[in-house]
Amino acid sequence: MSKTKTVKDQMGRVVEQPATSAPVVVLVRPQLGQNIGAACRCMLNFGLTELRLVSPRDGWPNPDADSMAAGALPVLQNAQVFDSVEAAVSDLTYVLSATARRRELEVPVIGTDVVGPQMRTYEAAGKRTGILFGPEKAGLTNADVVLTDAILTYPVNPAFQSLNLAQAVNIFAYIWASSADQLIPDLFDGSRSEVAPREDLTRLMEHLETELDAAGFFFPAAKKPLMAQNIRAPLTRAKMSAQEIRTFRGMIKALVKGRGEALLKIRRARGEDV
Amino acid sequence: MSKTKTVKDQMGRVVEQPATSAPVVVLVRPQLGQNIGAACRCMLNFGLTELRLVSPRDGWPNPDADSMAAGALPVLQNAQVFDSVEAAVSDLTYVLSATARRRELEVPVIGTDVVGPQMRTYEAAGKRTGILFGPEKAGLTNADVVLTDAILTYPVNPAFQSLNLAQAVNIFAYIWASSADQLIPDLFDGSRSEVAPREDLTRLMEHLETELDAAGFFFPAAKKPLMAQNIRAPLTRAKMSAQEIRTFRGMIKALVKGRGEALLKIRRARGEDV
Repeated sequence: MSKTKTVKDQMGRVVEQPATSAPVVVLVRPQLGQNIGAACRCMLNFGLTELRLVSPRDGWPNPDADSMAAGALPVLQNAQVFDSVEAAVSDLTYVLSATARRRELEVPVIGTDVVGPQMRTYEAAGKRTGILFGPEKAGLTNADVVLTDAILTYPVNPAFQSLNLAQAVNIFAYIWASSADQLIPDLFDGSRSEVAPREDLTRLMEHLETELDAAGFFFPAAKKPLMAQNIRAPLTRAKMSAQEIRTFRGMIKALVKGRGEALLKIRRARGEDV
Repeated sequence: MSKTKTVKDQMGRVVEQPATSAPVVVLVRPQLGQNIGAACRCMLNFGLTELRLVSPRDGWPNPDADSMAAGALPVLQNAQVFDSVEAAVSDLTYVLSATARRRELEVPVIGTDVVGPQMRTYEAAGKRTGILFGPEKAGLTNADVVLTDAILTYPVNPAFQSLNLAQAVNIFAYIWASSADQLIPDLFDGSRSEVAPREDLTRLMEHLETELDAAGFFFPAAKKPLMAQNIRAPLTRAKMSAQEIRTFRGMIKALVKGRGEALLKIRRARGEDV
């Protein structure tokens, strides 16, 4: 069911989307070219070939990445570059955050024992999957994590948690490769519609936040990121169908229009010109 | 049941053996200091702390290793150096070879799904375990592998198999950490004696090979390594108790003596002076 399609990356290049169903690795704001190259080698060792970069610190292409990629240079050369996480995951249906940090977010945590079969099941149904890895120093932000379906955490030593970026990619790639042919039979129960592509969800969130902004909802302004997270997390967890998203967007429009109508009514009642 | 003891490493330093029961990582003839340092970081990320080096190419200590070890410098500083695999594993009971290469050896292959519980079960019984990783370029030799109980192979991409040394250590450490509290209940069934320390087995093999050499068994000489492997692999698989090893050594002595006795008999029969 997975189709080949062309997408445009940040540099305006039209890129043919590989027909692979394997997970996409998304490095979010990576800092060191060496780590990007080493990540490519780890990916290809376990059969992952599709790399996406969100705003790499030192620009792109980065010659530091080449030597560490070794025989995985084609993975590096085919990497696509995006300027936002939203854009990088827009065609994906199931997206994880790799993070060891505890978060006060309503994003579920998935175990390393089931993540492979879970992704395989989406892939077998023709859905594309992916995983975000954060920058070396700080990791993913809450604003990144809240865009994803689940958090993947490795059983790291509490006394020495910080994994090198490539090592973190390495372990995910190993987990995925180890789960070949393992599916979760009832993940798609047939009674539910397909989950909409991530892009639809992103547009819903943007629509909603634009209207909330206009309504003065995000007050004080400093609290906006936190408030936005508290909206994005549950909407992501809901795994809405395209129809449900259309319904939500219609709902937002109705509410906005309604506010305008209500305002008109108040002003008319006051005898003002409207 | 695991005890603290002092061992002497290749540099003559008396080293206190950690009381940990976690697997020992043995890097066999590692080439690059950077990889040794990176391996330490991967080990400590997943709670492994005991590193042993067999004949590191560039000597030891190696300043190239330090920066890559990052916060895992103590693991690096406590590394012990040996001049043979046999010496490096002498106190271990269950030893693996990490290798992706197909071998014509009678050494069993263990799955990544059971290796963690298998090692944990030895550890819970107070036995020490370890795993060999070969040099970057060529990997472990058959002569190395045949000293071990089983081969561990990762599900690598057949088109791009060569894992970086630190990445290979990283995945083993992850597998081990993921298997916390998983034991194989019937691995020690109580009806069997304890498996002898590896040192006893090494001495048995040396004893046997010395006698076979004296008997002109290894002919032509070029075939000796292969012939020795074919002896070592089944003896290792047998997981002999100390008593069984004593019996085998007695057997060898008896055979050697018997050969002398038989020779005497022949010479006497010929009327020669004996």
